[in-house]
Amino acid sequence: MDFSSKLLEQAVDEMSQLPGIGKRTALRLVLHLLRQPEAQTSQLSDALLKLRQNIKLCRNCYNISDTELCEICSNPSRISEIVCVVEDIRDVMAIENTDQYRGHYHVLGGKISPMDGVGPSQLNIKPLIEKVKEGKIEEIIFALSSTLEGDTTNFYIFKQLEGTNVKTSTIARGISVGDELEYADEVTLGRSITNRIPFENSMKG
Amino acid sequence: MDFSSKLLEQAVDEMSQLPGIGKRTALRLVLHLLRQPEAQTSQLSDALLKLRQNIKLCRNCYNISDTELCEICSNPSRISEIVCVVEDIRDVMAIENTDQYRGHYHVLGGKISPMDGVGPSQLNIKPLIEKVKEGKIEEIIFALSSTLEGDTTNFYIFKQLEGTNVKTSTIARGISVGDELEYADEVTLGRSITNRIPFENSMKG
Repeated sequence: MDFSSKLLEQAVDEMSQLPGIGKRTALRLVLHLLRQPEAQTSQLSDALLKLRQNIKLCRNCYNISDTELCEICSNPSRISEIVCVVEDIRDVMAIENTDQYRGHYHVLGGKISPMDGVGPSQLNIKPLIEKVKEGKIEEIIFALSSTLEGDTTNFYIFKQLEGTNVKTSTIARGISVGDELEYADEVTLGRSITNRIPFENSMKG
Repeated sequence: MDFSSKLLEQAVDEMSQLPGIGKRTALRLVLHLLRQPEAQTSQLSDALLKLRQNIKLCRNCYNISDTELCEICSNPSRISEIVCVVEDIRDVMAIENTDQYRGHYHVLGGKISPMDGVGPSQLNIKPLIEKVKEGKIEEIIFALSSTLEGDTTNFYIFKQLEGTNVKTSTIARGISVGDELEYADEVTLGRSITNRIPFENSMKG
């Protein structure tokens, strides 16, 4: 693209570094900002910079937080002995939105993926194992995505926990509430049948 | 969405003000920035702010520019007597990319659209008429989109130019180079036939 302005070119270049934003979209977004009051750009620019410079990872669960200890870990009414292991903060938000979970989290920061050069040492696995060995955790709930990488990560952590007497579970996989059986994929439907639950339990919640 | 961090919430809120960016996409983009070196965020933030604060509109053609007079208007090898009237800066970039045009531009900054509350006075129409009346322009090429608003704007300017002896033309509409006739819409194909050109001319360029 041929820009008549260096300032515009730089803004578009930086904007198009974001994932899923090409040069054309970046140009559209930047031109939109030019049509808006200057305050909108300065607020956006300020919010991004402040976030990047001041954000912390909770020292207990590695969730994103404004403080040393995140809101969940510092809430005394949450059950610290139950820990749900997730990949990133979006999973924490998804589970929190269900209002069905009162335990703590542990954010790994990714999944083991040799293809992408991510090994166990790049993830927050060690602190989790330590917490278990210190006897602070009674149950670990694995809530990673059920991909090859997710399963590998689950299994790696599970192996590391051998010898401890922590209870482990994984979230239930099955067909979505409201879905038609005929459109469900066979792996999911198969798991739904294998992991069937007593009918009385399905009436709760 | 339930954010564990005020900083994150603010950044996502600001990001989702951009057109076509919802809360989920904004969150994805912001979390991406958190995983990148701090420099990337500060460069993005800086580029947007600098652009918004320092960008100028060329005093001759209203194109976006870093200087008082844009690169095109200040280039002595461009023909200032031919002026292509376009809606916004993206159209300038599109025509510049063809490398087929050596004249000047005039950026209107929009189209007349009573539905959106845009009248002729909000657009840069007056300076164009003045330039014509001062005898500085020999030919005006209308290159607005062929929508109701585009046609209205063309016609409004055309009427304003009555009594001057400026030449007016519009860019050719027809089916795209390489397109199959059977898939072309009938209006476009109709115009292609009405505005047919001598065969010799089609061999150029």
